[in-house]
Amino acid sequence: MATGLDSFPKIYPVSGFKLGTASAGIKEISRNDLVVMQIAENSAVAALFTKNAFCAAPIEVARNSLAKHVPSYLVVNTGNANAGTGARGIRDAQMTCAKIAELTEVDADKVLPFSTGVIGEYLPTQLILDALPSAIEALNEDGWEAAAWSILTTDTRPKASSKRFAIPSYHAGTSEVTTSPETHITLTGIAKGSGMIKPNMATMLSFIATDASIDNELLHRALTLAANKSFNRITVDGDTSTNDALVLVATGHSGVVVDELNFSQFQANLESVCVELAQACIRDGEGAAKFVTIVVANALNLDEALEVAYTVAESPLVKTALGASDANWGRIMAAIGRAEITHLDMEKVDIYINDTLVVHQGQRSADYSEEAGSIAMQTEDIEIKILLDRGDVSQTVWTTDLGHEYVRINADYRT
Amino acid sequence: MATGLDSFPKIYPVSGFKLGTASAGIKEISRNDLVVMQIAENSAVAALFTKNAFCAAPIEVARNSLAKHVPSYLVVNTGNANAGTGARGIRDAQMTCAKIAELTEVDADKVLPFSTGVIGEYLPTQLILDALPSAIEALNEDGWEAAAWSILTTDTRPKASSKRFAIPSYHAGTSEVTTSPETHITLTGIAKGSGMIKPNMATMLSFIATDASIDNELLHRALTLAANKSFNRITVDGDTSTNDALVLVATGHSGVVVDELNFSQFQANLESVCVELAQACIRDGEGAAKFVTIVVANALNLDEALEVAYTVAESPLVKTALGASDANWGRIMAAIGRAEITHLDMEKVDIYINDTLVVHQGQRSADYSEEAGSIAMQTEDIEIKILLDRGDVSQTVWTTDLGHEYVRINADYRT
Repeated sequence: MATGLDSFPKIYPVSGFKLGTASAGIKEISRNDLVVMQIAENSAVAALFTKNAFCAAPIEVARNSLAKHVPSYLVVNTGNANAGTGARGIRDAQMTCAKIAELTEVDADKVLPFSTGVIGEYLPTQLILDALPSAIEALNEDGWEAAAWSILTTDTRPKASSKRFAIPSYHAGTSEVTTSPETHITLTGIAKGSGMIKPNMATMLSFIATDASIDNELLHRALTLAANKSFNRITVDGDTSTNDALVLVATGHSGVVVDELNFSQFQANLESVCVELAQACIRDGEGAAKFVTIVVANALNLDEALEVAYTVAESPLVKTALGASDANWGRIMAAIGRAEITHLDMEKVDIYINDTLVVHQGQRSADYSEEAGSIAMQTEDIEIKILLDRGDVSQTVWTTDLGHEYVRINADYRT
Repeated sequence: MATGLDSFPKIYPVSGFKLGTASAGIKEISRNDLVVMQIAENSAVAALFTKNAFCAAPIEVARNSLAKHVPSYLVVNTGNANAGTGARGIRDAQMTCAKIAELTEVDADKVLPFSTGVIGEYLPTQLILDALPSAIEALNEDGWEAAAWSILTTDTRPKASSKRFAIPSYHAGTSEVTTSPETHITLTGIAKGSGMIKPNMATMLSFIATDASIDNELLHRALTLAANKSFNRITVDGDTSTNDALVLVATGHSGVVVDELNFSQFQANLESVCVELAQACIRDGEGAAKFVTIVVANALNLDEALEVAYTVAESPLVKTALGASDANWGRIMAAIGRAEITHLDMEKVDIYINDTLVVHQGQRSADYSEEAGSIAMQTEDIEIKILLDRGDVSQTVWTTDLGHEYVRINADYRT
């Protein structure tokens, strides 16, 4: 199952960013499972990683290398997460980087490794080393779609988002900041993720590139802001991956400079790309039959808005009711009631399902009928809006229902 | 489904505590769904209630009444939780109490109401009022088993625990404390609960009586200590009920006094009864095919031991793996890694499944094989032991797996 968004979007290549895929036969012989990405010189690179204390070997290697250099290559394998593999896992990730370094004549620290797939098995490193030359040979600015397919695990669809847009800016080399003519840049990204989705400052795996010219610090700020409106607002099951990484590359090849003056326009477009990718992960969430938006409004502060939103989004009882299209608002109330926030007065809570007022001041709305609730729940996209009447903070989280398909996928995952 | 414990245990009646059941036809015509319990004069009563901010009307009424008097009657209906029902729900609960007060000539504040069942529907109060006389007529010290059946909702089995035991004590009226002869008392309890099980200082519904003579304060202390080793250590889905209540009545009819001198012996026996009842809820957990014990050992403190235990116990990915008898230790590690504790070094973590060392120092144990894991997972009762190597605190939590049966039960609950 999966909900909405059937076709692969139109992709704008990003000058200075190339992708090449190959088949290493890590888990299946017949599919591409290896991607190498090449980053032009003088690019800026920002990355966010999982906050899971149990993080995979490639995450450790990538974090360390990123602290030393702006990378020149990224390498991603699917089919094996290289997590829970100790010192051997670190060596395996380093060997992968060293091989690319040798083939392309860069420093090994300038290659960042990423892995996704089953946890606790050693990486079939030799298979990867053998396939790297073909992946490098395939490097191409039009390699996005092939790469989007090649990084999937339990995902059923590739996920991409791409935009060309004008922002007020100047071209590098000129200094006419004041005139701010409209100049065009491109933002293109791919992502993978459908289970173990509760990004914690990052997502499963996502790689985004732009041809804008922007320094590392500003790029990191943009990525953090965008992640907090997108990848950090999705959950399938509350489980957090060991391998989450979100990477943003700015090649500068358009010559268009992003600085403090046009930062907000750049950031808004980046956020839009990130939201599309994050929502695509939820629409393809394991077993998802519903795309569920949880809005918590009129909260006192950010923490309590998110606490309520995630408690509802991750309640197994709310999720099974959603899967059955049952407007069981009592379960939503019970989840709100156990959220860890102080002095919540349930008699002030209103709940809407789509446009239907279901709960008013803590009890069933006078106008509400089971029939109305049932109709509201039939749509594939459902919004649950919870008004707390405590303040003016609002937060949105996206999630899925819980049904038999989730159980089937996750019971059979390793068999 | 349900796991273990097929037969109803032998029950020792408690002198001074009577139970009467009747059929009010609240949800189904053909079953008993109403229980009245009569508490002898001069009893002591302690109770713990749900901490869900969205609590049911009867909880509010019972809390208020308990603050004023030691109750004389308890009344329980199943089939309707009387939660999310606002002022009308309060009135409905009060009318139920008033009717018993009228029939038995006690103050209405001396009747505590309890409800369990579907949330958000008004109580069919007239049906209950009409059936109360038969329930009162049926009051009998041998009414435990009928009552245990009558309070069930999605439970498939009645749950009871009963013990007669000797403790060093003196009889009321004598003052020979120093000799401490062995005297006998009885502890008998029933419980209901199989979904929305994460008691927060209480459980779904449980009523326990003893013929010991003990004052209110000491009784409350015993109940709180026992709850923290039993009802507060179980979870099916992390969802917390709106109606949880745990009541302990001490009639004093045995004449055996419990005081500071023999408190620990009394408390240990009470804990044993509570653990049996709490575990019975888990064994009958919605869709449960496994009875899962999560032990977190060598934690720094209580909070972090419980945080790790509950994060693992409630991880949908761990639970689906358990349901599939898949020793997917990577998911256990990923859950431990996202638990909110500071500076956890995953490379010090060991994990046992039953007696099999699966993870040693953060990675697959050298001796471990998939076959060994698979064998360990085949049993109906599974213990996952997690050693953190940080301190000397240990905590145990009991939970279930997550399978198709859980989804089926909770998708169909209101239809």
